[in-house]
Amino acid sequence: MAASAPIEKTIYVGPFVHSTSLSTLDIQSQGAIGVDSSGTIRFVERNVTSLTDLLSASSYSDWHNAKIVSISGETGFFFPGFIDTHVHAPQHPNTGLFGKTTLLDWLQKYTFPMESSFADVAVAQRVYRNFVSRTLSHGTTTAAYFATIHVPATNTLADICLKRGQRALVGRVCMNSDLSPEYYRDESAEASYEKSKASIDYIRSIDPNGEIVKPIITPRFAPSCTGACLSKMGKLAQETGAHVQTHVSENKGEIELVRALFPEEESYTHVYDTHALLTDKTILAHAVHLDKEERDLILKRKSKISHCPASNTAITSGCAPIRTLLDEGHTVGLGTDVSGGFSPSILENVRQAIWVSRHLCIQTDSDVAKLSTEEALYLATRGGAAVVGLEDKVGGFEVGKEWDAQMINLGSVSEEGCDDGAFRAGPVDVFGWESWPDKVEKWVYSGDDRNTVAVWVRGRLVHKV
Amino acid sequence: MAASAPIEKTIYVGPFVHSTSLSTLDIQSQGAIGVDSSGTIRFVERNVTSLTDLLSASSYSDWHNAKIVSISGETGFFFPGFIDTHVHAPQHPNTGLFGKTTLLDWLQKYTFPMESSFADVAVAQRVYRNFVSRTLSHGTTTAAYFATIHVPATNTLADICLKRGQRALVGRVCMNSDLSPEYYRDESAEASYEKSKASIDYIRSIDPNGEIVKPIITPRFAPSCTGACLSKMGKLAQETGAHVQTHVSENKGEIELVRALFPEEESYTHVYDTHALLTDKTILAHAVHLDKEERDLILKRKSKISHCPASNTAITSGCAPIRTLLDEGHTVGLGTDVSGGFSPSILENVRQAIWVSRHLCIQTDSDVAKLSTEEALYLATRGGAAVVGLEDKVGGFEVGKEWDAQMINLGSVSEEGCDDGAFRAGPVDVFGWESWPDKVEKWVYSGDDRNTVAVWVRGRLVHKV
Repeated sequence: MAASAPIEKTIYVGPFVHSTSLSTLDIQSQGAIGVDSSGTIRFVERNVTSLTDLLSASSYSDWHNAKIVSISGETGFFFPGFIDTHVHAPQHPNTGLFGKTTLLDWLQKYTFPMESSFADVAVAQRVYRNFVSRTLSHGTTTAAYFATIHVPATNTLADICLKRGQRALVGRVCMNSDLSPEYYRDESAEASYEKSKASIDYIRSIDPNGEIVKPIITPRFAPSCTGACLSKMGKLAQETGAHVQTHVSENKGEIELVRALFPEEESYTHVYDTHALLTDKTILAHAVHLDKEERDLILKRKSKISHCPASNTAITSGCAPIRTLLDEGHTVGLGTDVSGGFSPSILENVRQAIWVSRHLCIQTDSDVAKLSTEEALYLATRGGAAVVGLEDKVGGFEVGKEWDAQMINLGSVSEEGCDDGAFRAGPVDVFGWESWPDKVEKWVYSGDDRNTVAVWVRGRLVHKV
Repeated sequence: MAASAPIEKTIYVGPFVHSTSLSTLDIQSQGAIGVDSSGTIRFVERNVTSLTDLLSASSYSDWHNAKIVSISGETGFFFPGFIDTHVHAPQHPNTGLFGKTTLLDWLQKYTFPMESSFADVAVAQRVYRNFVSRTLSHGTTTAAYFATIHVPATNTLADICLKRGQRALVGRVCMNSDLSPEYYRDESAEASYEKSKASIDYIRSIDPNGEIVKPIITPRFAPSCTGACLSKMGKLAQETGAHVQTHVSENKGEIELVRALFPEEESYTHVYDTHALLTDKTILAHAVHLDKEERDLILKRKSKISHCPASNTAITSGCAPIRTLLDEGHTVGLGTDVSGGFSPSILENVRQAIWVSRHLCIQTDSDVAKLSTEEALYLATRGGAAVVGLEDKVGGFEVGKEWDAQMINLGSVSEEGCDDGAFRAGPVDVFGWESWPDKVEKWVYSGDDRNTVAVWVRGRLVHKV
C-alpha cells in the first residue's frame, strides 16, 4: 500500500452513502461506481439489481475486465473519505493530555515542549508514521497538517503522506514572537520567511502537480508572530499562491492578548487581513468568538473556517456558532485539532459537532443551532473539501470526481445474541430490522475505526483492516 | 466464563490505579493484590519489587500455591470495574437513534415501540445476551437495569446477568398512565403492583442472598404512573426493602408535564416523596434541573443521583450541575442511560461528564464547575458503588472488598512508528516517555473497550478479549 502502487480499473458494488447537500444524505442500497486507472469516477449507477445486466449494455463494454470490489450483506456501505481541515501532527503523542488547562497555559505546558523535540528527525519519523497510519485508519483521506518550526521534520511529514498516499496540506509552523519560548521559535521574521519558503520548495519538488501533497503557509497564530513576520508570510502567500492556515478567535484570553499585542487593529481577524493573510485559500481554525464584522470580512475575502468541536470542548474554548456561520454563507469543515482535540477521528468530531450544537441550544433555550446528522456528515466531507480547495475532486461520489472513499462495515448480531469476543467487527450492533438511515445513524453515533475496513485515495488502497 | 465456575485464589501482580477520594487517584506502579476463593481482597501491597521476596514472609505462607495473574511491561494496569447506575437494557438496539428528538417525542417515536417488542421472550433473550456481553466488554461490573413492563423478559435479564456473573439491579418497568401508549402499559395500579412483586420474588428466588442480582422497583417516571400506582410502588418498597429507581427532572418539557399532572405537588421531587419513593435506596436518574428545595429533600431522604451526561447532551436535556450536587453532599454516580445515551460505555460517560462540566463553565464564564479526570473516575467507580448501595463491597481496592476489576492494556508504539493493522491493541498510543498519570489520562480520553482486556466480578473472570 503506497502511492506508487498501480491502480486497477475497478467497479465498487454495493450500498453507498454521501451528502448531496447540507441537509441531504443520498443513501443508495444497490450502487455500482466505476473508477478508472487514474482514480477518477467514470460512472455512478443506482438500483443495480444485477451487475451482469448492467455491464451487458454497450456503454459498459470497456468495463468487462474491471476488478470488482463488492460489499455483500446488509451491513456495509461506501462513504466518502473524511477531510480533517485542522490537525497538529506533532502533537499526536500528547493526545488526551490537557488536564484542566485552557489554550495559553496548555501551549506552554504540553505543546511547545513536545513540538520542540522534532528538531530530531528520528522523533518526527516515528511520530508522523504512526500518526498518518492512525488518521488513515479513521478514514481521513485528506488532512491539513500543522507540522513544527523545523524544515527537515516538516519535509519528513510530507514524504510520509506522499508515500502512504494520503492527501495533505503540510505546513511548517512559523512563530517568532516572545510568546513562544526561546527554545522553540524562529530567530527572526527573515528566518521565518526563508524556512517556510524552503519547505514549500521541497514539497513542490516531491509532488510537482500537488496531486497528493501541497505546501501550506502556517503562521501559528497572531500572538506568536510579530507584525513583520506576518507581513513576510502574506508576501510569501502572494509570491507562491500557496494555501494559508492559522488560528482565529479560539479563546477569550487569546482574543484579549491579540488586542494587547495589536492595539492598532480593529479585531483579531483584521490582524490577518492587514498582512494579506486572508485569502480565498486561507483556512481559519476555530472561529469561536468572532463578531459580525469579522465574519463579514472573512466572507468578503472568501476565507474558510475549520470547526474543531472536540478541541473547543476539551480545552473549554467555547461553542462555535456553526448554524450562524452556515446561514451567513461561510464555508465550514471539521478539524480534529489534535491534541487540543483528544481524538484523531473525524467521525468523533462529527459527533462532537452535534454535541456542541446541542449545548448551544441548551444555552439559548432554542432549537435553532441544532445540527442534524446529515449536516455534520456534510461538514466532514463536502464542507471539508471546500475548505481545502478540493471541492471539485473529493467529498462525494459523482462522475469526474476522484475515488477518495472508505468502506464501512457494521457488526451483525446473531440470532442468539453474541457472546464475549464476538465484537471484533466493532462497536455497532445491527439486529437486522434497521432501515438504511438507521444503520447510518448507528455508525455515526456508535462507530469507530474498526468499522472503517478499507480506505482509498484517488483509487488507491491506502488502508485495510 | 459463568458465575458457577470456581474461583482460584489469585494474586494480581502489576500496576493498579483506583480512586481514594473524589480528587485523588492512587496510582501504584508495582502492586500485588491477593484475592481469596470467595473473591474477597485479602491483601494490597505496594512497591513490590519481587513477588518471591514478598511471599517469603511468614504472613504470606498461605499464598504460595496461589494463581498469579500479572501485567508485564509498562502499558497495563488494574482498575476497578465500572458501575453503570442507570441503563435501559431493552433500548440497546436503538443505540445511536434519536435524530433531533428530545425526551417526550423520543419516547413515543423510538422507545415505546422497541420496549413493547419484549413481550416476546425470544427478542429479550437475543437483545439481553448481546447487551450484557457488550457492557461487560466495556468493563461494567455492576449495572442498574431498567427492563420492560414484561415479567418474563425482566426475569430473563436477571437470569442472564446471574449466568454471566455481572452484578445487576434488575427492574421491571412500571407504567400505567395515559402518557404511555395503550399497547405498552400496565392495565391498572393493581397490575403494576402484582407484576413488580412477581419479578421481585423471582429474582430473589434465583439469588437468595443477592450476591449478583437483586430486584429494583422501577416506576418509569412520574408522568407515566398514576398517583395510585406510585403509592403501590412506595408500599412495595416498604414491604420488600428493595431498591427503587426512577427518573427526575431530566427535561424542561417533562417538568411542565409533571406540574400539570400533579398540580397539588410542590415539585417533581415531591411527587416521589408523597408516595414514599424517596428512600435511601432510591436512584434518581438525571437531576438536571432540580431547584434547591428539591435537592435538599433528596439529601434529607438520602436518595442517590445518577448523572447521565451522554444522554443529557444527545437528547438536549441540559447540563446537570454536578459540582453543586457534590458540594452539597449528594451521592452521585454515572449512568450510560442507553439509549438516550448513545454508548454503553462508562468510560465514554467519564469523558462526557467532563465535557458537560466544561460546557457549564462556558455557560457561566467560570471554572468552578469543571470536573477533573480524577473526579470523573471517582464517579464511575466509588460514586457509582455508593449509588447502588455497594460502597462496602466494590469501587476500589482495599482489604475486605471484593475483586470487581478490569485489566487495562494500552498500545505501544514501536521505534519505527507503527503501520496499518498494528492497531489491534486499541486506540491509545504509548510512546514510552509518558508518566503513569499521563498513561491513565491517555486511557481516559482515548481508550475504548479494546483496552479492557479482562474483567472480573467477585474474583470470577467474566470477560476476556
